[in-house]
Amino acid sequence: MKVKRIGMLTSGGDCQALNAAMRGVVKTLAHSGQKVEIYGFIDGYKGLIYGDFRMLTGSDFSGILTKGGTILGSSRTPFKTITEPDENGLDKVDAMKQNYYKLRLDCLVVLGGNGSHKTANLLSEEGLNIVTLPKTIDNDLWGTDMTFGFQSAVDIATAAIDCIHTTAASHGRVFIVEVMGHKVGWLTLNAGMAGGADIILLPEIPYDIDKVVDKIEEREKAGSKFTIIAVAEGAISKEKAAMSKKDRKKADEKSKYPSVSYEIADQILEKTGREVRVTVPGHTQRGGSPCPYDRVFATRLGAEAGELILKNEYGFMVGYRNREIVKVPLDEVAGKLKYLDPDATIIKEAKLTGICFGD
Amino acid sequence: MKVKRIGMLTSGGDCQALNAAMRGVVKTLAHSGQKVEIYGFIDGYKGLIYGDFRMLTGSDFSGILTKGGTILGSSRTPFKTITEPDENGLDKVDAMKQNYYKLRLDCLVVLGGNGSHKTANLLSEEGLNIVTLPKTIDNDLWGTDMTFGFQSAVDIATAAIDCIHTTAASHGRVFIVEVMGHKVGWLTLNAGMAGGADIILLPEIPYDIDKVVDKIEEREKAGSKFTIIAVAEGAISKEKAAMSKKDRKKADEKSKYPSVSYEIADQILEKTGREVRVTVPGHTQRGGSPCPYDRVFATRLGAEAGELILKNEYGFMVGYRNREIVKVPLDEVAGKLKYLDPDATIIKEAKLTGICFGD
Amino acid sequence: MKVKRIGMLTSGGDCQALNAAMRGVVKTLAHSGQKVEIYGFIDGYKGLIYGDFRMLTGSDFSGILTKGGTILGSSRTPFKTITEPDENGLDKVDAMKQNYYKLRLDCLVVLGGNGSHKTANLLSEEGLNIVTLPKTIDNDLWGTDMTFGFQSAVDIATAAIDCIHTTAASHGRVFIVEVMGHKVGWLTLNAGMAGGADIILLPEIPYDIDKVVDKIEEREKAGSKFTIIAVAEGAISKEKAAMSKKDRKKADEKSKYPSVSYEIADQILEKTGREVRVTVPGHTQRGGSPCPYDRVFATRLGAEAGELILKNEYGFMVGYRNREIVKVPLDEVAGKLKYLDPDATIIKEAKLTGICFGD
Amino acid sequence: MKVKRIGMLTSGGDCQALNAAMRGVVKTLAHSGQKVEIYGFIDGYKGLIYGDFRMLTGSDFSGILTKGGTILGSSRTPFKTITEPDENGLDKVDAMKQNYYKLRLDCLVVLGGNGSHKTANLLSEEGLNIVTLPKTIDNDLWGTDMTFGFQSAVDIATAAIDCIHTTAASHGRVFIVEVMGHKVGWLTLNAGMAGGADIILLPEIPYDIDKVVDKIEEREKAGSKFTIIAVAEGAISKEKAAMSKKDRKKADEKSKYPSVSYEIADQILEKTGREVRVTVPGHTQRGGSPCPYDRVFATRLGAEAGELILKNEYGFMVGYRNREIVKVPLDEVAGKLKYLDPDATIIKEAKLTGICFGD
Repeated sequence: MKVKRIGMLTSGGDCQALNAAMRGVVKTLAHSGQKVEIYGFIDGYKGLIYGDFRMLTGSDFSGILTKGGTILGSSRTPFKTITEPDENGLDKVDAMKQNYYKLRLDCLVVLGGNGSHKTANLLSEEGLNIVTLPKTIDNDLWGTDMTFGFQSAVDIATAAIDCIHTTAASHGRVFIVEVMGHKVGWLTLNAGMAGGADIILLPEIPYDIDKVVDKIEEREKAGSKFTIIAVAEGAISKEKAAMSKKDRKKADEKSKYPSVSYEIADQILEKTGREVRVTVPGHTQRGGSPCPYDRVFATRLGAEAGELILKNEYGFMVGYRNREIVKVPLDEVAGKLKYLDPDATIIKEAKLTGICFGD
Repeated sequence: MKVKRIGMLTSGGDCQALNAAMRGVVKTLAHSGQKVEIYGFIDGYKGLIYGDFRMLTGSDFSGILTKGGTILGSSRTPFKTITEPDENGLDKVDAMKQNYYKLRLDCLVVLGGNGSHKTANLLSEEGLNIVTLPKTIDNDLWGTDMTFGFQSAVDIATAAIDCIHTTAASHGRVFIVEVMGHKVGWLTLNAGMAGGADIILLPEIPYDIDKVVDKIEEREKAGSKFTIIAVAEGAISKEKAAMSKKDRKKADEKSKYPSVSYEIADQILEKTGREVRVTVPGHTQRGGSPCPYDRVFATRLGAEAGELILKNEYGFMVGYRNREIVKVPLDEVAGKLKYLDPDATIIKEAKLTGICFGD
Repeated sequence: MKVKRIGMLTSGGDCQALNAAMRGVVKTLAHSGQKVEIYGFIDGYKGLIYGDFRMLTGSDFSGILTKGGTILGSSRTPFKTITEPDENGLDKVDAMKQNYYKLRLDCLVVLGGNGSHKTANLLSEEGLNIVTLPKTIDNDLWGTDMTFGFQSAVDIATAAIDCIHTTAASHGRVFIVEVMGHKVGWLTLNAGMAGGADIILLPEIPYDIDKVVDKIEEREKAGSKFTIIAVAEGAISKEKAAMSKKDRKKADEKSKYPSVSYEIADQILEKTGREVRVTVPGHTQRGGSPCPYDRVFATRLGAEAGELILKNEYGFMVGYRNREIVKVPLDEVAGKLKYLDPDATIIKEAKLTGICFGD
Repeated sequence: MKVKRIGMLTSGGDCQALNAAMRGVVKTLAHSGQKVEIYGFIDGYKGLIYGDFRMLTGSDFSGILTKGGTILGSSRTPFKTITEPDENGLDKVDAMKQNYYKLRLDCLVVLGGNGSHKTANLLSEEGLNIVTLPKTIDNDLWGTDMTFGFQSAVDIATAAIDCIHTTAASHGRVFIVEVMGHKVGWLTLNAGMAGGADIILLPEIPYDIDKVVDKIEEREKAGSKFTIIAVAEGAISKEKAAMSKKDRKKADEKSKYPSVSYEIADQILEKTGREVRVTVPGHTQRGGSPCPYDRVFATRLGAEAGELILKNEYGFMVGYRNREIVKVPLDEVAGKLKYLDPDATIIKEAKLTGICFGD
């Protein structure tokens, strides 16, 4: 039997269940009886560019189902810079292709998010055999209803809101918890609803600060001394949303606030005299052991990716749609973001229960 | 505006997110501006039969999003006995109708599992306005892809397997973790996969003990000294599955084992000389704070139930299908179980990664 | 039997196990058969000053063992301002005494930290019957080896470091986790050791930034691409520690950094070219359900406080020393901080294992 | 510099923080600059007897601070059988000595509980250089106030009671949670108090079943429909405690119950007509990641053990007394159990709050 030579890399910001997904791929290959050699590239595409890899065996993937992070290391290599030569004039795309061929790889498995999928698609178009897996806490990848990392991040952000809840209630205070998500609001929406936030501000639904203030005062009148606000990193005011991209960038650069949450806090103080505390769980949201949901989900995706490899079907991301595992052509995925629809049912339901989105 | 008079009860074994779901209903009604009176029946249908209730206000539902159990209490009132008179000759169905009319209820919200839905459907057929919500850790309700309680139970059962994993590995032992589920295997399958179980035995896939033993020995040969087996309460051997229902019952009565796990442990001991430890997380699986997934999910279902009430649409369970909230006619739900298909994709994927189901 | 009239208040920043401690007091009184009336003052000393209270019964304390925050609410009323008249010219100390006598209280139970103990001692000196319980996540109260809230906060801060650990390792980065503690380092030290931090910077051990940089580079040479630094809010450089208090204050005011962590991050960047990420779990550290250790500990202290009340012994904080519950005269506690000794055994042990304190 | 040759083994039932403790030892040796060779014996004393070991390096101990179980494996080798020849006539004590000398070890580090300390003391008396660390979830080792594993086990058992609490309250039921501890009650006492158990039954305080029943009925009269009972595996009735050891053994053998909890459940049913549910978290209590308390504690003990080795001080267990790390001569530790004193302050306090011990 011919040995299959399989490259593997994890790219972009790390998240939970990367190891679980890789374990799913490798267990499937091992269990099939197919002989394989696994070339694990170190620190994402960088490893592929510079030929930095180590050979992995089954035992490397044993016991990592519950382990956070990635045993391969990861790094961000923005798509924009991928197509530019490095500081020594090296053509990176060319280098990746050369290393792929030099190692006589049969395929390359890429675990990544949005940017990583653009590069994966490029490599696929350049003729490499690529299979990808949708990794991101943001759940913003096109072509799949769900990404692994997302539910684990929801759990961590919710735990933060839970902690803030007891202290906010005890002190009768307004608290902002800033949740990850520069462009999309899935994570903030879900953590906000799970944590019982009263106000949720998302990139997809520009907010009117007066609506936010109204909600706080309405709660106060009804006897609730405290208010919890879940704010996505990329939450945006109606004023700023109306600006041109250029003006917005200028405004951001001029801003004295480390993030939008602090600006909102200041505005609430100004308009109501209430001091607002800001908490930023930050990078904790992408760390730690994956939750059971993500472990199962990543294992399933990994198994399907393993099967595609066994069948020599390449050029796909393994995704999840309408409760079915599907293979999505890479060129459909690359370059698109899956935004939260402001008219989505879940938003309607959140509003039914009285949650304010500032719109 | 006419006040809406709404009865509410939680029936059957309790589970996580019952309170979250009721909060979703009540918050939606309150936020709509509709005036309501909430009659909370104590301990499930028993409260409705004997007119045991208390009036609830908005503040009863404040702060309970994260609280396990049910603020109304619950009890099991099997469908079979519902249609029989009680020890004082009281006709229970008649009593429920009388209490409903006496309190001039506009509708009754029932949170329950399988048995409870049969009774809910009966009451609906008798002319009462019923809305139900799908509650069970077993995820075995017909008409909905998901029930609340399920994911929280997966988390708890997985945590148990995680703990067992380290001790099994340290001692090189075979361990059985018995997971809840007499008739269906959703919970065991998901907890087993999330916990990295090597063997998973389910009610829907009768096992051959020799296949189980083979897997243990195959692992040993490959250098793995320990094996984790996730066994559903209702796991069944091929021999027993082939019996008539009557013979099976007889066999169960004669069995000296407290549950099937202990029988399997004994058989492994006999066939391999290996002592097997059994751990039974038991009722812990339905207790404690709901996980974030269940909190969001139950809130959404509750909101939709609230909307149905506002629109006077009755006779439905609020369910979830293909990622959409749907209303399912009660007579479609009642009396059917949603089994796990042995040919389901998730089973295929689990097998791809080498998990043994004993078939 | 004469009814005992007992006032109770929680003062200062909230923390875990406040409810558990109050439950311990009230359960002990109830179980003794002594008839009591509980006057719960709202939002700390403020409630006592302005006569804002509500009567509490046994059922208010049922089910709150595991509940974070405080059912009485809390607020910070600094000792300095306590002795000053309020904006309407009200003498606050006088007002507290008057309310105490007007309600004919037999005693006042105060759950508080450092500042709160100064006020408690003052009231005691003014003739009120006071019993206090040591509440703070900082574990900096004089006269007791342990305070409740501390271990729960250690758990939360450690969980944050655990999450950061996987992401730091995956990306080969230097990460700072800023842990609460402006004046003392108990929390940072314990969370840092539990989270496997490589460098721990504390208020009691001024750091030399070059020692910090050396450690990072030493780790790199030894093959560890990442470094975790646990920094207390009140960590201080050797330069600043050498300043007069006045100069230090001036330097703080001029600083462009939101906290010392960001300054350290910048210095590391300058000296090594390495980008450093800062994570601030912030207020989450004082919220959420108390850990089992704190529940037991707070219950024990509460029980002993209840017994003191039954015996009419006042003027004490119930503390814990050398594994025994002790009563400590209030004037011994007030105004002193329990610092971490830089020569403590635990510091020596941490250093033995290679942890760098920057000294 | 002479290389130090250090043997290491983990013996008896595994528990949390074994890896953390070994990491503490090895980090201390590495950081001291002392050259060392670590011989890790596989599966406890068995590895030493049969010469089964592997060489360990610093990297084996990296990243294991948070990892449950033991990287060396463990097994129970009862003291009684240690002094008997094996099935091939091998003198085990002699074999251990020979392997120690053959490998030219400078010392042996033993992590173990009660039985393991008897063997360690024997080896010490035979002239080997021994340092031990107190490992057990039972906290029953003589000579130390605390053992690692204990607090982690308290956390897990408490989490189980927390889950049961919500379901017990929802169904108005009596629930027994059986906590580990055949001979001592530390774990059950602490988990019971932390979980809010109403009744706690311990090996050291024989119970009167009528007192248990009285408490249940007293609670019912006071309006509490449910009762939580924490029962140690070794809980014992007054009748049985009064028996001779021989009679007791006979009674145990005749018993139809898998454990005392089931017997108590039956007795409550008989005397009150109430069905009682039993939950047994079992082996989960010794598994999973150590809690922060145990990680810090085990690291400290490990560091001190490392320092003893550097100073060539042998024949000691590193323990913890009155908040100080101490070295305890092995012959003081061996063969003694640290029981819970029925008159201990913590028991008094538990009783003050109304907890019933059945005495």
